[in-house]
Amino acid sequence: MNTKPNKSALKENQGIPQPEMVSSKSISNIKQKRRLLTSSEKLVEGILEGNITALSRAITLVESKNSDHLKKANSVLKACLPYANKSIRIGITGVPGVGKSTFIEAFGTYLTTFNKKVAVLAVDPSSSITKGSILGDKTRMEDLVKNENAFIRPSASGNSLGGVARKTRETIILCEAAGFDTIIIETVGVGQSETAVHSMVDFFLLLKLAGAGDELQGIKRGIIEMADTIAINKADGDNLKRAKLAKVEFNRALHMYPEKVSNWQPKVVTCSALNNDGVSELWTIINNYISKTSENNYFEKKRNDQNKYWLLQTIEDQLKSEFFNSKKIKKELINQMKLIETNKTTPFAAADYLLGLK
Amino acid sequence: MNTKPNKSALKENQGIPQPEMVSSKSISNIKQKRRLLTSSEKLVEGILEGNITALSRAITLVESKNSDHLKKANSVLKACLPYANKSIRIGITGVPGVGKSTFIEAFGTYLTTFNKKVAVLAVDPSSSITKGSILGDKTRMEDLVKNENAFIRPSASGNSLGGVARKTRETIILCEAAGFDTIIIETVGVGQSETAVHSMVDFFLLLKLAGAGDELQGIKRGIIEMADTIAINKADGDNLKRAKLAKVEFNRALHMYPEKVSNWQPKVVTCSALNNDGVSELWTIINNYISKTSENNYFEKKRNDQNKYWLLQTIEDQLKSEFFNSKKIKKELINQMKLIETNKTTPFAAADYLLGLK
Repeated sequence: MNTKPNKSALKENQGIPQPEMVSSKSISNIKQKRRLLTSSEKLVEGILEGNITALSRAITLVESKNSDHLKKANSVLKACLPYANKSIRIGITGVPGVGKSTFIEAFGTYLTTFNKKVAVLAVDPSSSITKGSILGDKTRMEDLVKNENAFIRPSASGNSLGGVARKTRETIILCEAAGFDTIIIETVGVGQSETAVHSMVDFFLLLKLAGAGDELQGIKRGIIEMADTIAINKADGDNLKRAKLAKVEFNRALHMYPEKVSNWQPKVVTCSALNNDGVSELWTIINNYISKTSENNYFEKKRNDQNKYWLLQTIEDQLKSEFFNSKKIKKELINQMKLIETNKTTPFAAADYLLGLK
Repeated sequence: MNTKPNKSALKENQGIPQPEMVSSKSISNIKQKRRLLTSSEKLVEGILEGNITALSRAITLVESKNSDHLKKANSVLKACLPYANKSIRIGITGVPGVGKSTFIEAFGTYLTTFNKKVAVLAVDPSSSITKGSILGDKTRMEDLVKNENAFIRPSASGNSLGGVARKTRETIILCEAAGFDTIIIETVGVGQSETAVHSMVDFFLLLKLAGAGDELQGIKRGIIEMADTIAINKADGDNLKRAKLAKVEFNRALHMYPEKVSNWQPKVVTCSALNNDGVSELWTIINNYISKTSENNYFEKKRNDQNKYWLLQTIEDQLKSEFFNSKKIKKELINQMKLIETNKTTPFAAADYLLGLK
């Protein structure tokens, strides 16, 4: 299939009769418009056929900063929407060193053995600075990257979590339209990115390590509350005993949390991604979760709530960025901050003043 | 002191020569403007003299929804600013039943015995619905309410935490200008209101109860992280032993948290507000905290950061409320939500559409 937009657009344009008195600029506009239209359709066609090149190109459009690209991305997304929403979306988090890549490699490979189509995405707002701390290096998932039923895409880059999350969320739609039925979204266990990932997945898996005081120290209660299952990884060799102990402790701790709205009691399991232990058990748990929450309609309700959350979140982000990126505001904000520091104005009077400049 | 604006304004107006050809409407405007000006000045004068009636009236203006009142409130605040910022601001939180009112009664009364002037405020966004769940009933602090060196003001009402918090924060300034040197801000240990209170105080005290699994169950890690001191209340009678055990446990737990930016190691104490035990010890702790953080400049830095936080927060709140309260947006938001529910649009396309209507 030919998905190169430039060539095909050129070919088609050759047959178009050009009206007289039209400036070369508007001809070029017409050409460009036509090219965008043609290739959007071709991209959608390709995506729906499961063509990976088309999928990758559409994701590149979603990630672009160019407004023409974004317009095109929106039209591709709109056309893909009716074919999306039919996958299971799994979020995976854990601190660096917990073995996320090894786990996803084992888990993803396992899924493809019974013909699941697995897309692996990531939300990592820091990747633009660190040049890809997670998934940046596909070689970490050597087998999965060569697997025909798998598609791995590193985190979009960007300075704001909101922006990176938006791109990943739209990429989910494209992957689903391309026939991927299991979407794995990885994130690092640091900062706010878990909340963003939690708000775009059906099932949230927290990877932990046993020992080293990890059960208590540095635990983020908020993340534990989000987890539908905690998997204690690297439960192998000398670590096995400690991992089993940690499992008991986490189980006890989880029972003290209030019951979830989903009516699902979070599970704790041990696994060894290295030895492929516990991987199939996790899949069984996920399937149980999906049946249970589909039965009580929580599954659908959650997706709806997530969509509404993203609508409101996007609007808020946009309102803020429009305001604070204005040159006039930037300059006056610095002045008002100085007045606040010297107690010459209140934060509320300064806010009124700045909002009045809009 | 006469702080009744109507009377004084009327009196002054009698001597003003009225120009011809001025409509009665503009005369009334002039009168109103003059009245507002006069009484602002009188209010400020009263506040700086420590007049409680003037202080209460100014707080009522801050809490008003009327835009003329708010303008007047802003001018009063501006005039009070140079006299504010000279108190110690203490936040107190704890779940319902922990004994906050009894504690504040004992603590506040203790402070007034050595001529401290104590203002007790509250942040409780739910109070507009429950008609005052905290501080609504002043009779809970029977002694303090009659104490000449104390001023108790129930939580402002309002639907949004942002609004209620803003009003409380401005009230702090008025109380400080009126000579109150210790400001206590109470909040319930539920929801986001602790974060709001934490962002307007120098010292944050968490009241806890021993036993009943309270040390683990229902603990909000975020709140514990904010606490500068945890006081285990009701350490009396049969409870004393359990309270002492809880103290040991909390001390152990606190040592596992990372060190605070303030360089302050949070303390754990037991107290019995009922028997007046541990109240003076808490005051010593607060004074140690103030000396330590004043020495390392954290005290001033924190207040500056809090002011900047409130500036940005107020702008964000205002941008959102302007957008979402527009009639056109309200109507179209419902339509877009429906399209999202039926997968006919993405949250991002819907956001674009709605932002385009601005």
